[in-house]
Amino acid sequence: MSEKNNVLREKYDVIVIGAGHAGCEAALAAARLGQETIMFTVSVDSIALMPCNPNIGGSSKGHLVRELDALGGEMGVNIDKTFIQSKMLNRSKGPAVHSLRAQADKQEYTRQMRRTLENTDHLTIRQAEVSELIVENRVLKGVKTVSGAEYYGKAAVLATGVYLRARCIYGNVSNPTGPNGLQAATHLTDSLIKNGIKMYRFKTGTPARVDKRSIDFSKMEEQLGDEKIIPFSFMTDPESIQRDQVSCWLTYTNEETHKIIRDNLDRSPLFSGFIEGTGPRYCPSIEDKVVKFADKNRHQVFIEPEGEYTNEMYLGGMSSSLPEDVQYAMYRTVPGLEKVKIVRNAYAIEYDCIDARQLYPTLEFREIEGLYSGGQFNGSSGYEEAAAQGLMAGINAARKVKGLEGIVLDRSQAYIGVLIDDLVTKESHEPYRMMTSRAEYRLLLRQDNADLRLTEIGHEIGLIGKERYQSVLKKKEEIEKEIFRLEHTTVGGTEKVQAFLERQNSTLLKNGITMAELIKRPELSYEILEEIDPGRPVLSDAVKEQVDINLKYEGYIKRQKSQVRQFKKLEGKKLPSFMNYYDIKGLRKEAMQKLDQLKPVNIGQASRISGVSPADISVLLVYLEQMRGIRRS
Amino acid sequence: MSEKNNVLREKYDVIVIGAGHAGCEAALAAARLGQETIMFTVSVDSIALMPCNPNIGGSSKGHLVRELDALGGEMGVNIDKTFIQSKMLNRSKGPAVHSLRAQADKQEYTRQMRRTLENTDHLTIRQAEVSELIVENRVLKGVKTVSGAEYYGKAAVLATGVYLRARCIYGNVSNPTGPNGLQAATHLTDSLIKNGIKMYRFKTGTPARVDKRSIDFSKMEEQLGDEKIIPFSFMTDPESIQRDQVSCWLTYTNEETHKIIRDNLDRSPLFSGFIEGTGPRYCPSIEDKVVKFADKNRHQVFIEPEGEYTNEMYLGGMSSSLPEDVQYAMYRTVPGLEKVKIVRNAYAIEYDCIDARQLYPTLEFREIEGLYSGGQFNGSSGYEEAAAQGLMAGINAARKVKGLEGIVLDRSQAYIGVLIDDLVTKESHEPYRMMTSRAEYRLLLRQDNADLRLTEIGHEIGLIGKERYQSVLKKKEEIEKEIFRLEHTTVGGTEKVQAFLERQNSTLLKNGITMAELIKRPELSYEILEEIDPGRPVLSDAVKEQVDINLKYEGYIKRQKSQVRQFKKLEGKKLPSFMNYYDIKGLRKEAMQKLDQLKPVNIGQASRISGVSPADISVLLVYLEQMRGIRRS
Ligand SMILES: Cc1cc2nc3c(=O)[nH]c(=O)nc-3n(C[C@H](O)[C@H](O)[C@H](O)COP(=O)(O)OP(=O)(O)OC[C@H]3O[C@@H](n4cnc5c(N)ncnc54)[C@H](O)[C@@H]3O)c2cc1C
Ligand SMILES: Cc1cc2nc3c(=O)[nH]c(=O)nc-3n(C[C@H](O)[C@H](O)[C@H](O)COP(=O)(O)OP(=O)(O)OC[C@H]3O[C@@H](n4cnc5c(N)ncnc54)[C@H](O)[C@@H]3O)c2cc1C
Repeated sequence: MSEKNNVLREKYDVIVIGAGHAGCEAALAAARLGQETIMFTVSVDSIALMPCNPNIGGSSKGHLVRELDALGGEMGVNIDKTFIQSKMLNRSKGPAVHSLRAQADKQEYTRQMRRTLENTDHLTIRQAEVSELIVENRVLKGVKTVSGAEYYGKAAVLATGVYLRARCIYGNVSNPTGPNGLQAATHLTDSLIKNGIKMYRFKTGTPARVDKRSIDFSKMEEQLGDEKIIPFSFMTDPESIQRDQVSCWLTYTNEETHKIIRDNLDRSPLFSGFIEGTGPRYCPSIEDKVVKFADKNRHQVFIEPEGEYTNEMYLGGMSSSLPEDVQYAMYRTVPGLEKVKIVRNAYAIEYDCIDARQLYPTLEFREIEGLYSGGQFNGSSGYEEAAAQGLMAGINAARKVKGLEGIVLDRSQAYIGVLIDDLVTKESHEPYRMMTSRAEYRLLLRQDNADLRLTEIGHEIGLIGKERYQSVLKKKEEIEKEIFRLEHTTVGGTEKVQAFLERQNSTLLKNGITMAELIKRPELSYEILEEIDPGRPVLSDAVKEQVDINLKYEGYIKRQKSQVRQFKKLEGKKLPSFMNYYDIKGLRKEAMQKLDQLKPVNIGQASRISGVSPADISVLLVYLEQMRGIRRS
Repeated sequence: MSEKNNVLREKYDVIVIGAGHAGCEAALAAARLGQETIMFTVSVDSIALMPCNPNIGGSSKGHLVRELDALGGEMGVNIDKTFIQSKMLNRSKGPAVHSLRAQADKQEYTRQMRRTLENTDHLTIRQAEVSELIVENRVLKGVKTVSGAEYYGKAAVLATGVYLRARCIYGNVSNPTGPNGLQAATHLTDSLIKNGIKMYRFKTGTPARVDKRSIDFSKMEEQLGDEKIIPFSFMTDPESIQRDQVSCWLTYTNEETHKIIRDNLDRSPLFSGFIEGTGPRYCPSIEDKVVKFADKNRHQVFIEPEGEYTNEMYLGGMSSSLPEDVQYAMYRTVPGLEKVKIVRNAYAIEYDCIDARQLYPTLEFREIEGLYSGGQFNGSSGYEEAAAQGLMAGINAARKVKGLEGIVLDRSQAYIGVLIDDLVTKESHEPYRMMTSRAEYRLLLRQDNADLRLTEIGHEIGLIGKERYQSVLKKKEEIEKEIFRLEHTTVGGTEKVQAFLERQNSTLLKNGITMAELIKRPELSYEILEEIDPGRPVLSDAVKEQVDINLKYEGYIKRQKSQVRQFKKLEGKKLPSFMNYYDIKGLRKEAMQKLDQLKPVNIGQASRISGVSPADISVLLVYLEQMRGIRRS
């Protein structure tokens, strides 16, 4: 530190701007990788804040958290410390869509995350608004704060979330603040634009928080947690987190609700054009839903506690920016909410973010070396999406400082790969949300096998210790061994076996069959077969689950694995950044433009650009072959 | 509730604007007195926030908390739930200045207070910025919020603290927010002015928060808590709150610190005129201290934890609004802080408040019936001062609704009385802070006897239940009985007694003497005399303490009691509000103006107005006599 010329000057390795879910993961990753890291936040009290829904995980988002955990991220550990209800969703469906979701005690969630951050070596937390990037010759050198202080670093991660020039809106009330009345960051956008970064303006919304004492729960359906709680983190001992759980509640809107909304649409800032930002299609406001799904006569409303010791309840599914009186009127038409008292109004928030196609898949800006970004700033929505990107941006920023190549997970390795590839490749005009349907290989990318898929990578990166890595290797070995055993254990039609099968309503055996084949029968499972499998070793539940899934879905899994091999071939064909697409004969005009604009890193990415056709890809492949031929000769 | 004309309309009995320490007490008191109460706050997350020092109590402030507790307030109960270190200050001095002080876990403090508020019947919490008063014919009718919603009520309490048009400043950085980057309230001032309320602009400041890990405690003096913890609340069982305590630390500034400050005074917004508000003389910034006490070569710096589980530490005594680089430089000259890392900068805050002489001693506005105010808004500073006023304003607002007369504590009854009387009587150009020296009868107004002084009043008001009141009556009786016994127990110069006295270095007896007389000897005490007092009954520590103090200081106490009788006479002489002071011959011009301006409620208050002399008071007394004569005849 020095104070020459009346400003503070400090030096770090990695600078993280933002302490939301993205910023926290980025800063923890960089610091844990040994980089001196400083994390800026407009307010220390907003660290790991959950400004919207009070839960972590859920469909496909649960996958992200599991993957993040396997790579050495913090979100899973933190929610395991602070959840008040936990549930594995979609249990009745196939394992690809099972998703863990936990209600959080919001205050406790931020408190525990802050505690972890505060006690991480190499990590400095600084409350200050970053106002400028310091960039020289397209290389990031540091940042300035509003006080003029200069912080130099070899890499930086932008994770400004919903705070840049934020505006909170309901009816005709507009406040120039971030969520929860926290100070917005008003200066940085200008500096980003000056550095050639193209900005978007998105919006998202949140429902009202209401007083529990004003709700009639007898008119609602109680939503209980799981009997046996499954942790998010692969490191958490399930026994250590079994607890009494808090309930959520389900109720529905009705025609009266919808009529009130329709009658007041002219007063909605969303439809009047007062809100300029684009909202998320997959987390629509209730007024959006009523307009877009005009034929639906009801929508679900989930009543979720904001914490264990507060009376504030979240009205999941009813986010809105309608005027306050309309909010009151519409909420009070919902069964159980007839006398509801609002504590905090629903509102929409508008903020500056970027078109993430300005980034490499490492999340580094193509045009500014050493500058990375993650989270809502990249045009995504959701805590888990933010955390996942933050982790990757933090890892890659740290690797940059160490002179190592960036880590990119591809679409066959992780939902995180799908998420980031979508963001940096596809045009999007609304906040991006993760969904299982976005993953091509979702039978491979299950939440239950995230550790088997990614712990090794986390270990190579340096965020996963040896012990944890070895326990995963051991688990892998046990699974393989047991599958091998089952594939080589033949069962014959003995009396005992036939009686067993009859009891299970399963076809009787005519010939000998392997245990593995039996498991594939829909009505049977690894667990059920125990009775007729005397040679079975003692295995953990986690191993048993993998054995079962891998054998049961073997056919599908094999097919997806062969598709992945195809996919990997295209991903392996690198496209140098100096390619001049306008010189390549045979490419269509649109393809030339799109390819030139995005500069894909490989043929795989090129093939996913909208406006680039399979024919264009063939042309590119031929061109690459020719180039290689030329270089060889 | 109705939504005619597109705005929300609701009706309550009492409206409280603000959820700081004043607002919380006001709202709780009104609700507990059975009034339907709504409490507004710009942010629910700011409820009972401690934006400055992390402790409750301290010299004279501890008295306020004890008094508040005896009247049925919440602050004492809440700090007993959330303290992490507790200490009775000034133990080496007389009982009048003993003061309890406790370090709080800030987050836990707000969390527990919020929990209490959320679960109080008749109390509604509403996050919304109040923007306007609704006043008709000088009678308060309700308030409006920024959304246009209207809330009608029969009385309202303004407790807006430091949020009105707030501005946070250090160096040349100025942010238009409340403390901690929370949204300010920008609209209400205009409405207050429109309603004839005269506004002031004050400022206060806070030191930096720093990272515990960057402090070298070996260079500081450890400050431990008391061995036996004494609770704040008379309701808390001492046994239930004994705990391991967290330490504070003491270090000092030095000439180098002072030189850096002096060298940079031209860059201080305080001295450059950039800050317009007036700051508190008794909580000065470090730059103020260095300028005003130029001959002092060091100042104390207390390092206090912000909570049990955070690494943020508060640098007590070093509040500042100097530029960031100067803050760093000066803090780093202090032993133990050589490598300190700032988490949050020190800053000053400017805000709108009032000249409290616009209020009756009930805290009702003279010119707007039904409108009350309390806390920092009234020109005070400090959490305890705020809470005490909030409680009285809340009580009186509730009483207004019920058609009962307002409660006023006078200067002989309580520090709360001194505080409010000073605020509504004396001209003040800076934030007012409580001090023991402000109380004329401080030997009577001890923290140890607040329950004996005020529980009865709390009971009459309706905030103290029968059981608690009766236990105080019982305590009183026990004290009186024991004093009577001691005054009537004669000790003779037996061998045992003389030997005892010799051991205590006390003069031997020549004649018989009462136990009471012996207690008065400085080297003896009720406790010590146990040995030669076989007839002593079993009494609680609290009773013993009262017996001891009352006998030991009997002479002084008697003298103060007779002064109080004099004082009460003047307080009893009411001055009607329709008095025309310009008509009273013999009054000096200045006195006429001052009396006309303030319209004191009685001769006592008149005598405390600066610019009103004892001669003027004599004139007034004669005039009152004449008036009475005229009316009688
Ligand atoms: C009202 C609202 C409704 C939402 N609704 C939904 C929803 O329905 N569904 C959904 O999936 N997601 C929703 N979200 C989004 C979800 O909250 C975010 O995706 C997630 O919190 C983003 O995390 P983040 O880390 O990217 O950014 P944030 O959590 O926004 O954190 C940003 C951090 O950056 C800091 N910061 C910003 N600028 C600066 C600067 N210049 N200098 C220093 N620090 C800075 C801030 O202090 C903060 O710590 C909603 C968010 C809000 C606010
Ligand atoms: C930076 C700083 C430094 C300080 N330093 C010291 C010190 O050194 N010594 C000392 O004794 N004291 C100090 N204080 C003062 C102490 O914090 C206050 O005296 C105390 O918190 C005041 O309590 P209050 O209830 O009056 O107001 P606050 O605690 O300020 O609470 C005000 C409440 O009113 C709400 N509010 C305001 N306007 C509106 C509106 N229009 N509509 C709805 N809600 C509204 C706010 O949301 C908030 O809940 C300092 C305060 C600050 C901020």
